[in-house]
Amino acid sequence: MTDLLTVSRILKEQDNIDILTHHYPDGDTLGSAYALCGILQNMGKNARVITSGTVAGKYEFLSEGVKKQEFEREFVVSVDVAAPTLLGENQQEYENIIDLCIDHHGTNSIEAKVKYVEETSAAASEIIYELAKVMDAEITVPIANGIYTGVSTDTGCFRYTNTTHRSHLIAAEMMASGADWQDINTAMFEMKTRAKLELERMVYRTLEYFFDGRVAVIHTTLEMQEKAGIGDDEVEGLASIPRRIEGVLLGITMREKENGVFKISVRSNKGANAAEFCQIFGGGGHAAAAGCTVEGSLEEVKAKLIEAAEKLI
Amino acid sequence: MTDLLTVSRILKEQDNIDILTHHYPDGDTLGSAYALCGILQNMGKNARVITSGTVAGKYEFLSEGVKKQEFEREFVVSVDVAAPTLLGENQQEYENIIDLCIDHHGTNSIEAKVKYVEETSAAASEIIYELAKVMDAEITVPIANGIYTGVSTDTGCFRYTNTTHRSHLIAAEMMASGADWQDINTAMFEMKTRAKLELERMVYRTLEYFFDGRVAVIHTTLEMQEKAGIGDDEVEGLASIPRRIEGVLLGITMREKENGVFKISVRSNKGANAAEFCQIFGGGGHAAAAGCTVEGSLEEVKAKLIEAAEKLI
Repeated sequence: MTDLLTVSRILKEQDNIDILTHHYPDGDTLGSAYALCGILQNMGKNARVITSGTVAGKYEFLSEGVKKQEFEREFVVSVDVAAPTLLGENQQEYENIIDLCIDHHGTNSIEAKVKYVEETSAAASEIIYELAKVMDAEITVPIANGIYTGVSTDTGCFRYTNTTHRSHLIAAEMMASGADWQDINTAMFEMKTRAKLELERMVYRTLEYFFDGRVAVIHTTLEMQEKAGIGDDEVEGLASIPRRIEGVLLGITMREKENGVFKISVRSNKGANAAEFCQIFGGGGHAAAAGCTVEGSLEEVKAKLIEAAEKLI
Repeated sequence: MTDLLTVSRILKEQDNIDILTHHYPDGDTLGSAYALCGILQNMGKNARVITSGTVAGKYEFLSEGVKKQEFEREFVVSVDVAAPTLLGENQQEYENIIDLCIDHHGTNSIEAKVKYVEETSAAASEIIYELAKVMDAEITVPIANGIYTGVSTDTGCFRYTNTTHRSHLIAAEMMASGADWQDINTAMFEMKTRAKLELERMVYRTLEYFFDGRVAVIHTTLEMQEKAGIGDDEVEGLASIPRRIEGVLLGITMREKENGVFKISVRSNKGANAAEFCQIFGGGGHAAAAGCTVEGSLEEVKAKLIEAAEKLI
């Protein structure tokens, strides 16, 4: 296994570097990419970030922290990209020419000359932090912003089970280095679009309890999405709604993907197993969070789910 | 000003210690009190926590971390209690016999023989952490749970502006000391009662936008509370709903307290001043969060608020 000192040495020898994020980039892939870009530019190198798919407006400040540079690429790094397909529109051009792959997904299947995959990191940005230390890079404000954004978003603001005490230590250091942590937290965790709120309002109306409140079900339909004026990419974070209700063991979210096809997200509290539930429908996942796809009308699919839930609860 | 070494010396000399929390205790006053209680008990002293008002079920695990002890009290400590009235039902018995007051509210008006008030701490639990270090106390799991709970709840899980890099450093150390941080975060920030969710569902239906979405207003009435089956103490956390919507400058929450009397909570984003708004109605607060009371029917009060908002926006 390559160590960070080797990664550091390789990067120091290179110039004109493309940094790839994953498709529909999130806070960690963007935070990692722009932090690394800043580190390389501060060493006098040319570097730029290549994204794929829509980048949400709330991440724009990250790109403002680096210089826009034009150059002939000589070296390619991917960050937080677990598989070639996740390169999205960049897959064809880049999948066979990646020189260095930095990631924290144990399942990483990227083909690269050098791979540094570190599964115990809560975020890829934690690896970038460690790399910055090994490279002896100064943590400027834009770099601190990238790393703080990556760590806070991938840990759900220090709540998810992947959070470690190191995540907090890194956050503390990024705050001390001037990260705009208040603005970042507001943008990442507080603000919602009107369309998102409108959809949530409709979703709340669909909430139903079963089996003395041990199972709760919500749903969205294509019609609801259209009425709320919300794009498919923006529909996220709904699955936690039913699971957060006291007494609920299984929280089921049904999302109409196309006519007659529902994507089912299941979240469980202690006393129920989401993966076991989803396996009934050919899906899978973890004990606390799993998913599957079920075909049929809204009422048909709901009836199938309730019937399956009754056996498990 | 007393320093922590003095506080430590005083506590080491005492035994049979009552530790007071504030009325309707929250995670910080309880976390501080039980952590301190554990520290003192581990030194072979008798100590117990005296609360006032209902203690929410989610905090029960904190009291399970200390021994129940009966004794004749000889020494009284208050933690996170900013004023005598906040002692609630314990005010009469205790307000004149407090030996040591530990707090992080700059406005602290408790009369005590010795006071240690440290305003730069995000939570009183941060002071208890520092005290544990000075007293050379081992951070056992129950003590780590108390301190983690206090810091995470008083910082809104590391999001509020009072969060410092020290809050993260302390959280990191409490995690390393075995704090049940996952269960704590789930209980503190994730779970809602069905009644709370029912009220939220009704509140979402009241949401109205004004002035191109720059002002958003929600309300609760006594009737809604009764219909949802929710106690007055449980109605919290609503005020952030309208402020979190993209484009909203002033988020106004109207809460009927008694017939014809509304408590108004105002939260603002950059570009509006909540305190300025509330001053119009004789209230006050900070630029980002302020409050006031307005009398009248729901429609009358709303009309007054909208009229005032128009002038400020």
